[in-house]
Amino acid sequence: MDERVREHAEILVDWSARVEAGDNVVLSVGPDAHDLAVAVARCLGERGANLLATYSSGELTRAYLRAYDGDSAVSEDEHDDRSSVAFDDDPAHELALLEETDVFLSLGGGRNTSATADVPAETRQAYSSSRTGIRERRLGTRWVSTVHPTRSLAQQAGMAYEEYREFAYDAILRDWESLADEMARMKELLDDASTVRLVAGDTDLTMRIDGRTAVNSAASVAYDSHNLPSGEVFTAPYATEGEVTFDVPMTVRGESVRNVRLVFENGEVVDHDADEGADVIAEVLGTDEGARRLGELGVGMNRGIDRYTDNILFDEKMGETIHLALGRAYDACLADGESGTDSAVHVDLIADVSENARLEVDGDIVQRNGRFRWEDEFEE
Amino acid sequence: MDERVREHAEILVDWSARVEAGDNVVLSVGPDAHDLAVAVARCLGERGANLLATYSSGELTRAYLRAYDGDSAVSEDEHDDRSSVAFDDDPAHELALLEETDVFLSLGGGRNTSATADVPAETRQAYSSSRTGIRERRLGTRWVSTVHPTRSLAQQAGMAYEEYREFAYDAILRDWESLADEMARMKELLDDASTVRLVAGDTDLTMRIDGRTAVNSAASVAYDSHNLPSGEVFTAPYATEGEVTFDVPMTVRGESVRNVRLVFENGEVVDHDADEGADVIAEVLGTDEGARRLGELGVGMNRGIDRYTDNILFDEKMGETIHLALGRAYDACLADGESGTDSAVHVDLIADVSENARLEVDGDIVQRNGRFRWEDEFEE
Repeated sequence: MDERVREHAEILVDWSARVEAGDNVVLSVGPDAHDLAVAVARCLGERGANLLATYSSGELTRAYLRAYDGDSAVSEDEHDDRSSVAFDDDPAHELALLEETDVFLSLGGGRNTSATADVPAETRQAYSSSRTGIRERRLGTRWVSTVHPTRSLAQQAGMAYEEYREFAYDAILRDWESLADEMARMKELLDDASTVRLVAGDTDLTMRIDGRTAVNSAASVAYDSHNLPSGEVFTAPYATEGEVTFDVPMTVRGESVRNVRLVFENGEVVDHDADEGADVIAEVLGTDEGARRLGELGVGMNRGIDRYTDNILFDEKMGETIHLALGRAYDACLADGESGTDSAVHVDLIADVSENARLEVDGDIVQRNGRFRWEDEFEE
Repeated sequence: MDERVREHAEILVDWSARVEAGDNVVLSVGPDAHDLAVAVARCLGERGANLLATYSSGELTRAYLRAYDGDSAVSEDEHDDRSSVAFDDDPAHELALLEETDVFLSLGGGRNTSATADVPAETRQAYSSSRTGIRERRLGTRWVSTVHPTRSLAQQAGMAYEEYREFAYDAILRDWESLADEMARMKELLDDASTVRLVAGDTDLTMRIDGRTAVNSAASVAYDSHNLPSGEVFTAPYATEGEVTFDVPMTVRGESVRNVRLVFENGEVVDHDADEGADVIAEVLGTDEGARRLGELGVGMNRGIDRYTDNILFDEKMGETIHLALGRAYDACLADGESGTDSAVHVDLIADVSENARLEVDGDIVQRNGRFRWEDEFEE
């Protein structure tokens, strides 16, 4: 077995999920994540945890959802004429499983990132809505999502397979303890601050963050962080004013978006534009009131991620980027009882800040052209 | 998708497991059973059942068990010096899942039928013993085991892949209703009878079966039958007298056995021999008292299975064969409160009865040279 697969499994089990003897673990395995699953199973055995593996396949889900929804031969147009599908709410067997689960490890990795492309949106939505209780239980476990680098993900990134594996392991096999220490500095700065200002090219955006708590997302449940890789510090901004351009390309709801430009007044988007994908951005903004406000300001600090790969698990943690999300804020950033932006959506958009850019916290420059002020290369 | 895969799924879901809307279904998927799993997911969606897929991989199990057992580098000799491994009894998450499960469908199909070959026997045994409650729950569902024809199974059968697929679908895609009707005749004969005598070559064996109930194993939970393919009628014989030779080759505990010969007196094996594998047969017979008695007499009636493929799921249902099992009898064959042969083992051995053979029930010839008396070709 590739030593990197073994290291990936060890980081996931020990650093990320903090698995201990006797933990009841669900291992969700994508069809092409088998090798990682074997390595994780070995770690779980070594730790004396109890293993149940589930199979997470887009092709299975597609076949099931389309068939449940009447007839797999029915066209999307015909679907649109019908009332939404009635799935059973929170099937008792899956709910019972998760009620007794301590750790949920999701190993993504299929053969086609578009495997569910022809499932009607309303069917997906109805299925997702029927599983609210299951989702809550899962989020109540020590859950961590990661991916096994597959050919399908390499293709999505526009990379050769071996090239993509190098990329993915550079992102995943980090010295997380050391990165957590560095990110703690950024968290401390944000926790103590009232305002953040981002200036870059034609971007000049000011947000308030006082009263909000930043998350040091160090790829471990011990840090309230549930992605591997991670490597970002994020908080929940409000009262946003100004203009921002997101120059890192994205796929939003299956559509390419490029150079999205948003104008904020009194915390709300009042104007928007894009070189590509303006329609889908308009659709997102129209979802509800919260969709026109920011739910997240994130600082990407994982320099193992040095390029865009059209996968939000990696993209939003890219070193020398800042991302903002339209929509829902994370509870972890809010004081008890405080309500942040509430919305049905959470759509991340990313800006490259490696050149001609600065991030100010309470008026002090904290990052300039991608370098932080505690790094040697920083010159004020 | 191959139409045969779709038909296989439909038989499994409708005929075998009798799935209905609202059933909570666990679909256990082998690593190479993906295509069948997709077809089954489609059927389950059509029926309005609730689907949770689990992943059943010998390689995962091997990695987990060896690691749990101390050190995957430890040799089997060293293992033998240690006390047995302590697994947690019936992990609560898996137990809870099965408590709420109505239907358990196992889709076998891996990449290597020897995937767990280097897991020490005591580790397997300890793991299996720790899961008694889970196994009982699973056997309390409408469970059905089948296999997706894979290259690995083709190799075990000594067949080309396409050739094996033809073979497997001939065995699986039968007119089960019609076969069930034919098997009902055999069940009726056995239920009403006191003795069975098998004469073939140097075999002459008499068994009592009065008071015992035969199972019409028609590949459906509606017939107390949990294998697809099936196609056998079996009961629980006792008071066996005489001699029998099993000329269909088998693999028992990983060892080849060939031409096993057993001599019975007063229901018990008093002498045995084999052209190959005599040692493993001796080992089986030495397990406990029940291992020297018969637990099953089965009449193979699936003529879609026309050759030995070293897979008991198929072999014991082969048309024109009779099998007998050393060890445990099935409860379904016993009257309430009656105890049949009890043993830790149940080892099937198979005899070809297609030539120079007859099966007598209460002195009447029921099968001669593989043909039943209700078949046109039968000549008394």
